[in-house]
Amino acid sequence: VPAPAASNLQIDPERLWGDLMETAKIGGTPNGGICRLTLTDLDRQVRDWFCREAKALGCAVTIDDMGAIYARREGQRRDVPPIAMGSHLDTQPSGGKFDGALGVLAALEALRTLHRAGYETFAPIEVINWTNEEGARFAPAMLASGVFGGVFERDWAAARQDRAGVVFGDALEEIGYRGPAKCGDRHPLSAFFELHIEQGPYLEAEGRDIGAVTGIQAIRWYEVTVVGNETHAGTTPMPRRKDALVAASRIVARIDALAREYAPLAVGTVGWLEVRPNSPNVVPGQVTFTVDLRHPDETVVEAMETELRRALYGIADEGLRVEMKPIWHQPPVVFDKTCVAAVRAAARACGLTSRDIISGAGHDAAYVSRVTSTAMIFVPCRDGLSHNEAEFTSKEQCAAGAQVLLQAVLAFDRELAARQR
Amino acid sequence: VPAPAASNLQIDPERLWGDLMETAKIGGTPNGGICRLTLTDLDRQVRDWFCREAKALGCAVTIDDMGAIYARREGQRRDVPPIAMGSHLDTQPSGGKFDGALGVLAALEALRTLHRAGYETFAPIEVINWTNEEGARFAPAMLASGVFGGVFERDWAAARQDRAGVVFGDALEEIGYRGPAKCGDRHPLSAFFELHIEQGPYLEAEGRDIGAVTGIQAIRWYEVTVVGNETHAGTTPMPRRKDALVAASRIVARIDALAREYAPLAVGTVGWLEVRPNSPNVVPGQVTFTVDLRHPDETVVEAMETELRRALYGIADEGLRVEMKPIWHQPPVVFDKTCVAAVRAAARACGLTSRDIISGAGHDAAYVSRVTSTAMIFVPCRDGLSHNEAEFTSKEQCAAGAQVLLQAVLAFDRELAARQR
Repeated sequence: VPAPAASNLQIDPERLWGDLMETAKIGGTPNGGICRLTLTDLDRQVRDWFCREAKALGCAVTIDDMGAIYARREGQRRDVPPIAMGSHLDTQPSGGKFDGALGVLAALEALRTLHRAGYETFAPIEVINWTNEEGARFAPAMLASGVFGGVFERDWAAARQDRAGVVFGDALEEIGYRGPAKCGDRHPLSAFFELHIEQGPYLEAEGRDIGAVTGIQAIRWYEVTVVGNETHAGTTPMPRRKDALVAASRIVARIDALAREYAPLAVGTVGWLEVRPNSPNVVPGQVTFTVDLRHPDETVVEAMETELRRALYGIADEGLRVEMKPIWHQPPVVFDKTCVAAVRAAARACGLTSRDIISGAGHDAAYVSRVTSTAMIFVPCRDGLSHNEAEFTSKEQCAAGAQVLLQAVLAFDRELAARQR
Repeated sequence: VPAPAASNLQIDPERLWGDLMETAKIGGTPNGGICRLTLTDLDRQVRDWFCREAKALGCAVTIDDMGAIYARREGQRRDVPPIAMGSHLDTQPSGGKFDGALGVLAALEALRTLHRAGYETFAPIEVINWTNEEGARFAPAMLASGVFGGVFERDWAAARQDRAGVVFGDALEEIGYRGPAKCGDRHPLSAFFELHIEQGPYLEAEGRDIGAVTGIQAIRWYEVTVVGNETHAGTTPMPRRKDALVAASRIVARIDALAREYAPLAVGTVGWLEVRPNSPNVVPGQVTFTVDLRHPDETVVEAMETELRRALYGIADEGLRVEMKPIWHQPPVVFDKTCVAAVRAAARACGLTSRDIISGAGHDAAYVSRVTSTAMIFVPCRDGLSHNEAEFTSKEQCAAGAQVLLQAVLAFDRELAARQR
């Protein structure tokens, strides 16, 4: 029996959907979402599941010192770096079923399709699960892909702590996923493709099946601390107060207004905020919060930062102490033209409608793109909703994304073969 | 040796200060404050200390089912209800050394003074340590004195839970302070006197030694929940957001402005606030916070509540869900004329300057006043600062308060004797 033509390979929508629903039970919430924070025991369970499935397909599974998992299927040439696909299996505290999981499970399904068909690629194919993409437990986000891409120092990354003081490296050890390989070291890739839900409203609004992601907007994160004066809520006259929460509240409202001033593309968010001492009858003495500013144009983010600083000076003028610390800065990412073209062509070949799109969110692909040719594939999600238990992408939409992922990888593989032979 | 005249009895400033500093080590913080949340093991330690000291003075120590501790020194007449003094030994998460502790330790020192002098009172004298005055761990505040005063149902109180879900009654059991007596049941008092730091700026500003507290302002607490839409911070365009934190921030700022509109006596505070899911790159889906409104005049608090509701309607108009739940309502308290007069007279007799004052804070005395004649004594505190690790009242100021406490109790005792003989 001859091997089938690449264009005849079809992923199985039901099997992919089954995997999505089955793994969604690991950390599943009553409202239909997933709470599977990185390096928890739930994360271990889904990692175990992934390793088992990959091994059943004959893959060699390796783990590096950042806990990233690589499932490798050999091709004709062992000396050619693998073409990789993947995303992440960790979630937000009340995340949905598709953010991250779709990228890993669709990659697994693509690999399974190759395996069942007995199709031999030119390059090896790798499916990757990156650690701590969400950054919900350990900051910064995309820790493993960041080390892989040379953005973060290995030791610095391993020493990150969660809010309870647990060290990243120890947590990896604890769940048995601290591998011997050095993340990113002697691990070249020929390319990296990441399928992901859009997490925004545009594809759905325009009725397109596929987004060919050309890049990622600039992102800056800050941690702001406002220090006022902790005092009794019943007995401290209003003019004598230095209420850190009242001051912080003005900044929160200002950030919202600021992003609207740079409409329609700018976004600004305070997602995390903590009050001290956080007692009903104590005027808050200290408030710490994160600020997330984004825009496709770096100069606009710059301008927003300036405006934010101005607002903070206003608080300082009222006699409170304010400190702003940049904690993450991602310049705009431009993906590889060849890879993006492969995605566009794959969508066309599958009879799907597509558009070019810029990602509003950071993704592992952003860091991986520093060391290899990279692109992303977006599929729509209902109401643009993500980081929410109600996040939803249909079985057909997931399947379309997985099919495009497989075809893009195969197209890239064919081109690689043509170039090297 | 004949017993000394009451007016010759002098508390020992050094001994009182020593007790304050010694017990301040139990839960002492690096910044000189105390973190001794109610019913923690630290609370147990200070309770054990108190019981030991009281027993060493020959007192009978009993504990009721709300964990309130009563140290009783007999007088001439066992059939006359005791004259009680006391306050609380629990603190805020970052509280100071004097709030509560001064009232208990000065009462202990007053009792010790009687004991050492061999002075026999007419009525028994009791020192009381009330449980969970602060309300920082279990809401509502003043839980034990509230049951004692018939304000809270016994079973309801025992079933209160902290934010980790620990039940009040179980926590009492855990530290060994769930006594057999029913709090407030068959436990009449002849009077109750509570010494406390002012926690406000007035006595210090006017250079007065003593505040004769005539009553407590009206207090209302609410819990407000704002429900928006939890979604991705990078990809959700500003016009599509329902950010619960941005909405809550406007309310926080409004409450601050509102209190200032009812200057100079109104205060309004958001002291506790919690964001969900509280992740840097998720638009907050839900924010819950407490509101504390106070004014000596009930109708003003009423008007403030109406304004607050109006602001919440504004949020609801923007498509978020808002819920406001009253969690505590204390009408203004007016203390007993005889007791207040005893405080004024005691200050005068001690050669101290005093003024009448209304308490801005709630105190155990508020609830105890429902079932017996009650008054409070205030001493100044530096910068009016309280619920703060830097809270400070000098050795001399503490001693002055303790001396007035002793003299007021003795004056009341003499009057009681005169009335009953």
